[in-house]
Amino acid sequence: MTGFVSFVSSGPGDPELLTLKAVARLQAADAVLFDDLSSGPILAHVRTGADLISVGKRAGRVSPRQQHVSRLLVDYATTHERVVRLKSGDAGIFGRLEEEIEALSAAGIGYEVIPGVTSACAAAAAAGMPLTRRLKSRRVQFVTGHDVTGTLPEELNFAALADPSATTAVFMGKRTFPELARRLVAAGLPANTPAMLAESVGHPDQRLTRTTVAELTELMTSEASNTPALILYGALAPGRS
Amino acid sequence: MTGFVSFVSSGPGDPELLTLKAVARLQAADAVLFDDLSSGPILAHVRTGADLISVGKRAGRVSPRQQHVSRLLVDYATTHERVVRLKSGDAGIFGRLEEEIEALSAAGIGYEVIPGVTSACAAAAAAGMPLTRRLKSRRVQFVTGHDVTGTLPEELNFAALADPSATTAVFMGKRTFPELARRLVAAGLPANTPAMLAESVGHPDQRLTRTTVAELTELMTSEASNTPALILYGALAPGRS
Repeated sequence: MTGFVSFVSSGPGDPELLTLKAVARLQAADAVLFDDLSSGPILAHVRTGADLISVGKRAGRVSPRQQHVSRLLVDYATTHERVVRLKSGDAGIFGRLEEEIEALSAAGIGYEVIPGVTSACAAAAAAGMPLTRRLKSRRVQFVTGHDVTGTLPEELNFAALADPSATTAVFMGKRTFPELARRLVAAGLPANTPAMLAESVGHPDQRLTRTTVAELTELMTSEASNTPALILYGALAPGRS
Repeated sequence: MTGFVSFVSSGPGDPELLTLKAVARLQAADAVLFDDLSSGPILAHVRTGADLISVGKRAGRVSPRQQHVSRLLVDYATTHERVVRLKSGDAGIFGRLEEEIEALSAAGIGYEVIPGVTSACAAAAAAGMPLTRRLKSRRVQFVTGHDVTGTLPEELNFAALADPSATTAVFMGKRTFPELARRLVAAGLPANTPAMLAESVGHPDQRLTRTTVAELTELMTSEASNTPALILYGALAPGRS
């Protein structure tokens, strides 16, 4: 038997930010492979009797197990008809989706991608502000703050990222932010550029901290918390006062 | 009476890509203000007896009516308890959300923003590909292709947009793409950079065209269709073959 894989975006964590299509795929699934980030209430949509497989990846950690995950996914898709691979945020953004797609394609297994709410949109919404503003912020960019080795990727386009008129979201960038900020300021970004640290967006312990790039650097150097976080900086809108 | 406004993201058009929270807000609403883009099936969640107000904005058209929309929104929020302002895609991305928020704040009216699936994520998902790739595409950027006057914004950061190692999504950029492409190629983007035209994403008449920046320019010059479209270019993943 050859199954079909639905890559399902679970959104930022709030189970109410699942799409109707994501819920339908979870309900119909014979097997669901999920990362540690996927919370319980989201898995509550899965029917009794379906296989639930934790593949144990965590945000902000180096995962040596991508090949293992891809192999597991192929295995389940050859023994189960409807397989869901749950991905946090939007599956297509910094989720290493291409590696799992390649493994499926090599094995001749069909798939679909169900898009979802990316944590950058969720963080801005939680702060009551848009990511773009007419005349003031015409470009929004998402970047990842860490490499497979856990360090800041050297090939980042620092000039593009140092543009204070854009709004930039840094995914998984807590640990490397001091180094990123140093490079950005060297590339021309004013140190007092508005910034926001969004931790556990969409979860009950969500915390939003409005600050500047310079102050956030100090905060990140002194704080060692491992909470999943997203950093926004640039031409940020005022939001809720 | 002073009401409360929920800015609800309706997603790319497929009613199954609404979030559970969006559905809940639509069901509870006493009044719903929507653009022409919001399709019937989405409004089907609104209860009988609620006021449905079309505010008549269209993608890709110059709208001189933003002030009128903001005034209407304040009016409804002073006479209705639960008001939904439906926005296509994600409300915070190129939706002029800040102008409506400013009007509410000036009138002392509370609000929340419910994030949703942006059409850039939906277009990539429809093509079966991620927006980012490990080592190959570390930056994704969204930009708008037209100004309030309907022309290409002069203040765009063409250097940042001409980076072939990023993935760029151009919103509402069909009409101005030939001019944008000329500027990008002048700024160093190879003319044979992969591109994808995604029309009516999430709607039954969805059409995806894989091409290059140079070929898309010719296509856009010869085609006059007014279908809502999103253009992706850059380090695009192969996707479904």
